[in-house]
Amino acid sequence: MVLDEIPGFWAVVPAGGAGTRLWPLSRSRAPKFLHDLTGSGRSLLEQTHDRLAPLAGERVLVVTGEAHRAAVRDQLAMLPEDAVVAEPSARDSMAAIGLAAALLERRGAEVMGSFAADHVIAEPERFAASVAAAVAAARDGWLVTIGIEPTFASSAFGYIREGEELPGHPAARRVVEFVEKPSVAVAEEYLATGQYRWNAGMFVVRPSVLLDLLAEQDPDFAATLRTIAAEPDRLGELWESLPKIAIDHAVAEPAAAAGKVATIPGGFGWDDVGDFDSLATLLGGADTCSVLGDPALTQLIDASGIVVPGSGRTVAVIGLDDIVVVDTPDALLVTTRARAQEVKNVVAALKQKGRTDLV
Amino acid sequence: MVLDEIPGFWAVVPAGGAGTRLWPLSRSRAPKFLHDLTGSGRSLLEQTHDRLAPLAGERVLVVTGEAHRAAVRDQLAMLPEDAVVAEPSARDSMAAIGLAAALLERRGAEVMGSFAADHVIAEPERFAASVAAAVAAARDGWLVTIGIEPTFASSAFGYIREGEELPGHPAARRVVEFVEKPSVAVAEEYLATGQYRWNAGMFVVRPSVLLDLLAEQDPDFAATLRTIAAEPDRLGELWESLPKIAIDHAVAEPAAAAGKVATIPGGFGWDDVGDFDSLATLLGGADTCSVLGDPALTQLIDASGIVVPGSGRTVAVIGLDDIVVVDTPDALLVTTRARAQEVKNVVAALKQKGRTDLV
Repeated sequence: MVLDEIPGFWAVVPAGGAGTRLWPLSRSRAPKFLHDLTGSGRSLLEQTHDRLAPLAGERVLVVTGEAHRAAVRDQLAMLPEDAVVAEPSARDSMAAIGLAAALLERRGAEVMGSFAADHVIAEPERFAASVAAAVAAARDGWLVTIGIEPTFASSAFGYIREGEELPGHPAARRVVEFVEKPSVAVAEEYLATGQYRWNAGMFVVRPSVLLDLLAEQDPDFAATLRTIAAEPDRLGELWESLPKIAIDHAVAEPAAAAGKVATIPGGFGWDDVGDFDSLATLLGGADTCSVLGDPALTQLIDASGIVVPGSGRTVAVIGLDDIVVVDTPDALLVTTRARAQEVKNVVAALKQKGRTDLV
Repeated sequence: MVLDEIPGFWAVVPAGGAGTRLWPLSRSRAPKFLHDLTGSGRSLLEQTHDRLAPLAGERVLVVTGEAHRAAVRDQLAMLPEDAVVAEPSARDSMAAIGLAAALLERRGAEVMGSFAADHVIAEPERFAASVAAAVAAARDGWLVTIGIEPTFASSAFGYIREGEELPGHPAARRVVEFVEKPSVAVAEEYLATGQYRWNAGMFVVRPSVLLDLLAEQDPDFAATLRTIAAEPDRLGELWESLPKIAIDHAVAEPAAAAGKVATIPGGFGWDDVGDFDSLATLLGGADTCSVLGDPALTQLIDASGIVVPGSGRTVAVIGLDDIVVVDTPDALLVTTRARAQEVKNVVAALKQKGRTDLV
């Protein structure tokens, strides 16, 4: 299947987030999106670009932290110089995506779609089809979110509640509401209704529509973003005044309440690779031992889980099921898939000890 | 308590054995005895010398492999030059201890006691008392073995079966027989009788008595050892002709059958540190996480077992009980205390792959 470019469509890639639950692979200096977490030979950022380039061509805008601008440019060297925008500091997703919207509004972009740099998608063609359907609805003025078909009752994601069909857009539905991460029991109820989808933060919208929706909630915020786009030299001066708020709270939730949000179903094998447990599932599933790296560096006897031989050293594991072993040049993690969420506690403890060199 | 030197007593220290179950700490180039396995700041070899020096003064003879002569001399620099004898190749314990006996016979030693370089003893004073009692019996012509009081029904050690008391030596008993490593069930029966002790390979004997006992079984073997002692230049030429046999089979078992072996009880907290399970017990016991190395290099959350941060890297462990994590500059081991015996299988697999650099 050859994917067609979508005329007037710009891909926005917010490349942020620390990924502390993937320590010691992911570090503040080299976060998750810069790493090849699937053994494909491509980083998550590169894979994100690989997915979007057929749809957007060179119309790609990456928003990342100042500290990562060089690494992002290295990995995406084919993009024009102005395709990578550096935030002076991390100010959450509304500022990052809003800045992209303001810049693209001035560049005359018809529709933008924002897709995180650190997610994994199994079926790029089906992803492209969802994006194309979302762009069609966005052209009609909707704020469109791609709602991921849930595969289990996760308590790690927010949910989108679907409503009626959208006239003229057979695949689309209205969004009744966005709901915060539920308990597993509540998530099970959601799944039983068939009306809920995971919120993966994928928004497709006309740049002006997004900024106008923001202006309805916070006129200064939208105005400041448009000022920065008009006078890029003032980025450093104005950036720190922007509120730290997620796009979901700033725009998506109030817009949904006002009946202005639509959703397109996404059934393309999505994973946000939140921790080593989900990475183990992604790479191999149960009862196997996935090796992310060179298998010749491992000696495994009765082991299952995930082993990352990431320092060139030989890693031997004997008699451990659902184990997580992550070997890097300066730090080693040993835990279980079940406790993988707690890796962030190690990062917190190291920070407290002043070992910022390790986090 | 000040320990008295024992006149005419020579300490022999066979420093050999690969210690493959302690890989990756123990390597063929740097075996177990060269390492500080107790966190005392002294290697097992140094600790062995520390224990014996009060009894033997400078009358110490270390028999080691050619490859380890320099390292042994480095650690025991206080000893005279001829205190370290290098075997051209490993030919099991009879050749090593027999060579020491032949050399000491020529030096006029009255009694020798042989004690492995890689064991740990908790109470050196009680050890010294056992050695003194063994030397007294050895002066009367007995081959004396120190029999360790068993603390559990181990299937990892050979056993010594005690018989009648030895006239004139209140602590000593005759040895009825040496028995091979039993099953745990059989070991439990042994312990129930109260007649069995662990064979730790500690032999105290007049050098001539040992060589004469050997000559009864294998006259050429004893004669060749005496030839080497008389003409040290012929060591390289004659060494490879010596049988590869343990002193237990070559001398101790037939001598016991002939009623010529006595035993002295050893209740001084002995451990041969056979694997990481026993090392964990030695260092901390159950429900704790022992750290062999710098605790500042570890981040432990709900972990028990043993962690060896041996490469300078930070080691984080979360949610694992009875875990074994051994971190070295070129190899990493992760296993459980229960599976610690199988570490030797990793060493075997690495050898088969040609990774002799790692073993």
